[in-house]
Amino acid sequence: MQRALLRRSAPLAQQAAAAFDSQLAARSAPLLQRLDRSMSCVTIPPPACMLRPLEVPLRYLFGPGPSNVPPRILAAQGRPIIGHLHPEMYTIMNDIQRGIQYIFQTENNMTIAMSGSGHAAMECAVFNAVEPGESVLVAVNGIWGERVAEIAERMGANVHRMVKAPGGYFSNKEIEQAVKKHKPVLFFLTHGESSAGLCHPVDGIGDICRKHNCLFLVDTVASLGAAPIFMDKQNIDILYSGSQKALNAPPGTAPISFSERACHKMFNRKTKPVSYLFDMTHLSNYWGCDGQPARLYHHTGPVSGFFALRESLAIIAEKGLEESWRKHKEVAGYLYRGLGDLGLKLFIPEADLRLPSVTTIAIPDGYNWRELLAYIMKHHQMEMTGGLGPSIGMVIRIGLMGYNCEKSNVDMALHALADALKNCKKRRKKKKKKR
Amino acid sequence: MQRALLRRSAPLAQQAAAAFDSQLAARSAPLLQRLDRSMSCVTIPPPACMLRPLEVPLRYLFGPGPSNVPPRILAAQGRPIIGHLHPEMYTIMNDIQRGIQYIFQTENNMTIAMSGSGHAAMECAVFNAVEPGESVLVAVNGIWGERVAEIAERMGANVHRMVKAPGGYFSNKEIEQAVKKHKPVLFFLTHGESSAGLCHPVDGIGDICRKHNCLFLVDTVASLGAAPIFMDKQNIDILYSGSQKALNAPPGTAPISFSERACHKMFNRKTKPVSYLFDMTHLSNYWGCDGQPARLYHHTGPVSGFFALRESLAIIAEKGLEESWRKHKEVAGYLYRGLGDLGLKLFIPEADLRLPSVTTIAIPDGYNWRELLAYIMKHHQMEMTGGLGPSIGMVIRIGLMGYNCEKSNVDMALHALADALKNCKKRRKKKKKKR
Repeated sequence: MQRALLRRSAPLAQQAAAAFDSQLAARSAPLLQRLDRSMSCVTIPPPACMLRPLEVPLRYLFGPGPSNVPPRILAAQGRPIIGHLHPEMYTIMNDIQRGIQYIFQTENNMTIAMSGSGHAAMECAVFNAVEPGESVLVAVNGIWGERVAEIAERMGANVHRMVKAPGGYFSNKEIEQAVKKHKPVLFFLTHGESSAGLCHPVDGIGDICRKHNCLFLVDTVASLGAAPIFMDKQNIDILYSGSQKALNAPPGTAPISFSERACHKMFNRKTKPVSYLFDMTHLSNYWGCDGQPARLYHHTGPVSGFFALRESLAIIAEKGLEESWRKHKEVAGYLYRGLGDLGLKLFIPEADLRLPSVTTIAIPDGYNWRELLAYIMKHHQMEMTGGLGPSIGMVIRIGLMGYNCEKSNVDMALHALADALKNCKKRRKKKKKKR
Repeated sequence: MQRALLRRSAPLAQQAAAAFDSQLAARSAPLLQRLDRSMSCVTIPPPACMLRPLEVPLRYLFGPGPSNVPPRILAAQGRPIIGHLHPEMYTIMNDIQRGIQYIFQTENNMTIAMSGSGHAAMECAVFNAVEPGESVLVAVNGIWGERVAEIAERMGANVHRMVKAPGGYFSNKEIEQAVKKHKPVLFFLTHGESSAGLCHPVDGIGDICRKHNCLFLVDTVASLGAAPIFMDKQNIDILYSGSQKALNAPPGTAPISFSERACHKMFNRKTKPVSYLFDMTHLSNYWGCDGQPARLYHHTGPVSGFFALRESLAIIAEKGLEESWRKHKEVAGYLYRGLGDLGLKLFIPEADLRLPSVTTIAIPDGYNWRELLAYIMKHHQMEMTGGLGPSIGMVIRIGLMGYNCEKSNVDMALHALADALKNCKKRRKKKKKKR
């Protein structure tokens, strides 16, 4: 079997293995009875659900992510794996590093992908840049700021929140006043606040942070590849994202990059970060960023996830970032017009503050948003979502990112929405109260 | 494109997308020049390495893992994804939970898979079960104990180590004495110490821990599916493993289970765990283990990784655990005899203490182990590895796990080893010193 796998092409080997495996499944019950059980005293039997095949329905993923994964990325992810410490794997990781540098527009050497979701990058950023007792300032205008504040509090930071309602944004003046007041070592801002559909302006904030000797941490999970960001030019010290939004890879990896200022802070700390797994002294070695000749074992990276991430970055490199930004803006504009034609109101009134990847719609008067979404999933196999955290009950969200960012998909989404609005009849006030 | 993807079968859609993508690549350079750059001031160009195709060589992964992934699991992982919070995804996660309960031989409701490697499970176990200042006892006889000790120290535990040389093991009497002395809230032991090739006896230790009101934490990353473990019968309170060993899935997910005693301790703590991402109050809800009607968003799980993990657990459920254990024992025995015929000495002298999934060989006198391994990789495209942590320079490791656990693979591995021993001539002592 093994020899066959490595010699034949993958599809052939897959067919052979599938045939073999179904034989196994068919005879598994009598086989179990024939076994010598002397090694064991198994009392928990194989669960019946595990003897049924995996079922995965096809869905249009038009929510805030994960987004549909293009076949080219799925194919990369489905390739036979190699070892996480093989030289060929290091080449792939080096390519990923260069791809992230491009999409972040940074020359930072300290640029890697986390073995985990955007939350892993979030924790990595905070755990490494902050020591217990240090002051952290967090801009909260949706869910992500709240998350970062919670993470920083858990690791012992002295957290200060600047709070606005979902969709609100902070002027540079407000930010500078708060930085002056709280003297944080780190200021956090979400570039793409997906819970509210806001794309926050970033220009000038990095300069404020430098002036006041504070690191500038920015979350671009929902915006990367969809809206311009320039890590170096905008003086962002730590930038991270996720794989499953405009990058279109499956969830499970998360690009992150650190400026020299951030490196200086994190590699001159008095205490070790609380997490061994997210410690950048180890991760920087694993990714070959620390100048050491040997890359040592730290943890086992998600080999297939890195194949997929590399492919997703390659697609953007081939297209060009500008083209990706232009396309998201154009398709989002097309969606806004269609929503207007349906009589729907966008949640973010200022067009230039809208996140091109995730559009938020104010819930139309008298409708139950859960009912609308359930109707769309049931009748159109299409995911749209409600709000998240503080925006729950305020918005419906449509995400058209990367591969899904096409006018034809806008048409489908609008058709589904129109159908739902027609069929999920408005509730009279009296009925509403009963529920 | 999107419509086409969801209607056609995956292979057809992949071909179409590949053709489309290669057209894109061919015209990417002129396209970039034609673009309206008014949105951007891109200064970092697309890296040349990202415009080349992904290259992944085929390798026999006969090291301590990751192991070769069978085509059936790769195919599961390559399927179009769905949302991480869709009802169908919850069904898949529920199946995974049942599969882990079977392979762990436990009825624990608090059984999940981490969105991360075995290290994520390690940190999850320690972060949730221990509060700062509490006493933790760690058995160190290879690398994994050292890792857990470091993790516990970072989160503020009072760590006590019991240390033996790699391959050494602890008697129940020694363990009970240490537990009495240090009064830990948690005792850690590695079941499959892959750095030394040791499979540590577990019987009776859970009882000692109960008697002294201490939780028993066991690492089965390298042993699960290859050597018997009975979480409930052996009174193990927290058990975790990894996806990429005998389970044969790609790295990136990690099964973990908590007993009622462990749940009682971790859900009645005074402080929050340092990690938000690994907090079991959130993860237990995400996995539907907390009895709450709604499973709320916490982080984005690795959807494709869960498809792969489910498939790997299904394969073991179909085969039966006993058959998997029997096969690993049989194939390991066949390997031991072959190694003996080559004049090689096993690192663990006691046959019944050897880890069936990973076999350790004492480095043959006068050979340079790095040279042997490099020869085998170069001439046989086969990974075997050296030691890890304290066993570096002491052993060569051959892993034949799950799908790779076949006598035909033993033959290939022995052939490669014999060839290397013949061609990597013994070094005279003088030469050795020069290096």
